[in-house]
Amino acid sequence: MNDFPKQTAIEYHSGRIRFIDQTRLPQCVKIVETNDYTVIASAIRRLALRGAPLIGVAAAFAVAAEAHRLPYIDNLRQHLANVIQSLRATRPTAVNLFWALNRMQETLNHASETEVVQAMEYAALSIYNADKRSCEAIAQSGLPLIPYNARVLTICNTGFLATAGIGTALGIILRGFEAGRIEHVFALETRPLLQGARLTTWELMQNGIPFTLLVDGAAGSLLRRGGIDLAIIGADRIASNGDTANKIGSLQLALACIRFGVPFYVAAPFSTIDPATPSGSAIEVEERKTVEVTFINNKPIAEHVLNAYNPAFDIVDSDLITGFITDRGVIKPPYNF
Amino acid sequence: MNDFPKQTAIEYHSGRIRFIDQTRLPQCVKIVETNDYTVIASAIRRLALRGAPLIGVAAAFAVAAEAHRLPYIDNLRQHLANVIQSLRATRPTAVNLFWALNRMQETLNHASETEVVQAMEYAALSIYNADKRSCEAIAQSGLPLIPYNARVLTICNTGFLATAGIGTALGIILRGFEAGRIEHVFALETRPLLQGARLTTWELMQNGIPFTLLVDGAAGSLLRRGGIDLAIIGADRIASNGDTANKIGSLQLALACIRFGVPFYVAAPFSTIDPATPSGSAIEVEERKTVEVTFINNKPIAEHVLNAYNPAFDIVDSDLITGFITDRGVIKPPYNF
Repeated sequence: MNDFPKQTAIEYHSGRIRFIDQTRLPQCVKIVETNDYTVIASAIRRLALRGAPLIGVAAAFAVAAEAHRLPYIDNLRQHLANVIQSLRATRPTAVNLFWALNRMQETLNHASETEVVQAMEYAALSIYNADKRSCEAIAQSGLPLIPYNARVLTICNTGFLATAGIGTALGIILRGFEAGRIEHVFALETRPLLQGARLTTWELMQNGIPFTLLVDGAAGSLLRRGGIDLAIIGADRIASNGDTANKIGSLQLALACIRFGVPFYVAAPFSTIDPATPSGSAIEVEERKTVEVTFINNKPIAEHVLNAYNPAFDIVDSDLITGFITDRGVIKPPYNF
Repeated sequence: MNDFPKQTAIEYHSGRIRFIDQTRLPQCVKIVETNDYTVIASAIRRLALRGAPLIGVAAAFAVAAEAHRLPYIDNLRQHLANVIQSLRATRPTAVNLFWALNRMQETLNHASETEVVQAMEYAALSIYNADKRSCEAIAQSGLPLIPYNARVLTICNTGFLATAGIGTALGIILRGFEAGRIEHVFALETRPLLQGARLTTWELMQNGIPFTLLVDGAAGSLLRRGGIDLAIIGADRIASNGDTANKIGSLQLALACIRFGVPFYVAAPFSTIDPATPSGSAIEVEERKTVEVTFINNKPIAEHVLNAYNPAFDIVDSDLITGFITDRGVIKPPYNF
């Protein structure tokens, strides 16, 4: 097996997908290789592949791999449509997944019989490359918003592990650091699954960016103390009124930013905006299992607790958001997408 | 060894202290018996004994036990003064510790040579019994504030494990449940040391009170969804303007309550009010070690992280607080203690 490229979450070559199993990070960098779309579906469900843009890319690769695997079956078109449907059912909140699968379905509808396999692979790689470019464009949009010597606060993971490229919020931070604008990053650990503690700090370390970790409940204390210039988060879905679904904990972070006068930005590809969703209350928020809260590292912390409220996402009301940093520039209120 | 009484965190008999090592809960109910004040000091430091009222009681017992152990030494008075000083240095934020040790020192100052041991034991037991009564008085003050079928949100642990009696915020919840007013309790897990997940849920279960656990970052989501009637938290120190030190995460909880119009109460003995502290900015907030954030259950979650911002307490600004529930009644704004 060739070396897996650095600072990459997923890749596709000739019907085979390779990706990092993110549940094992940072203790172990386990690369999974597969041509089985059900392995990708399960990886998305159990968050081995996560991050709104990345799960869109991964789902597209899964469809392409299945086309590549079975080029000569009679009912390929119907089979792939079924595969697309099953991938749709993995996670409900991030719009990127549906956006990517819609593009795959459209490509399937328009491809002639003889070109289905190539069309699917080409479409998936286009989605992948577009996301890569989109990350760079987001970073370029965001750069002017970062003051020199900035101290930035972020939640969850929005870097190369969450996208096909350098990331969204963390991509801005990376390019900002390279441009000499970022002095220090404060990373919220992001309970229950600790994507901030496990993944974001690991990415920051690889890039030599100075950082401090804190529990989610300490963001208010940090902001109250002062010295934080801005917060940047990612997004899983943006409603047409600007209400934004993002990792649980984002709403309280936004409220603390408002309280202490710190700008609060959402960074995402423009495709994360879903004009079909009028407001946050129309976003289906995934609720996950109690054991994610009551066990850590497969060890019980509160085994006797049988009932946890465990939404994967928050809805951040649009009035709390200073601006959206997208691949089509920065969008300020009023929001009307 | 006699059975350790149920729903009790600490007890004192004839120079011997017994207490539950709270770091081991809920997996194991380990009772420690000691007559060594340094064991108590270390238990306070490592949070085997925690909760603002309880550490005051434990420190008083430690002084009494040392008096009991060495009744005939020449310099007993000076020795006990030194013991009091060393116990003062265990934790800086909760005022109850200093309040209890000041009372022990005063008793020491006024006791005649022949009665020092008895005076110290009597003073410590008085502090213990006063706290027990204070818990009941707090619960009686709070009861009328709880609507019938209330759904209550709380953070950290403020029950029998945090006091000499039934607790502060959790004592109100217990008596409220017995009075048929409480329908459901939502307990924040309270990172980093998970006192909510480990201790509060364990207490609620023992009392048959229905509850749901959630990560600290999910409080905003729960409050936004609606159906929560009030939040009640404890306090480690209350400044004369009403600014309140309490477990990290309390500030963000208060901000979310304000946002969604949910009353936010602080429950504490009146002695938690420190007129010598003019405002929150004068409260020394204890910062604890990085490993509390990067390890859980002695297993690493982010071993590569060498730098965490880990304040043990938040300062909740007084304008966010609906009222104080004390053993002397409910105090509403404006606060001027």
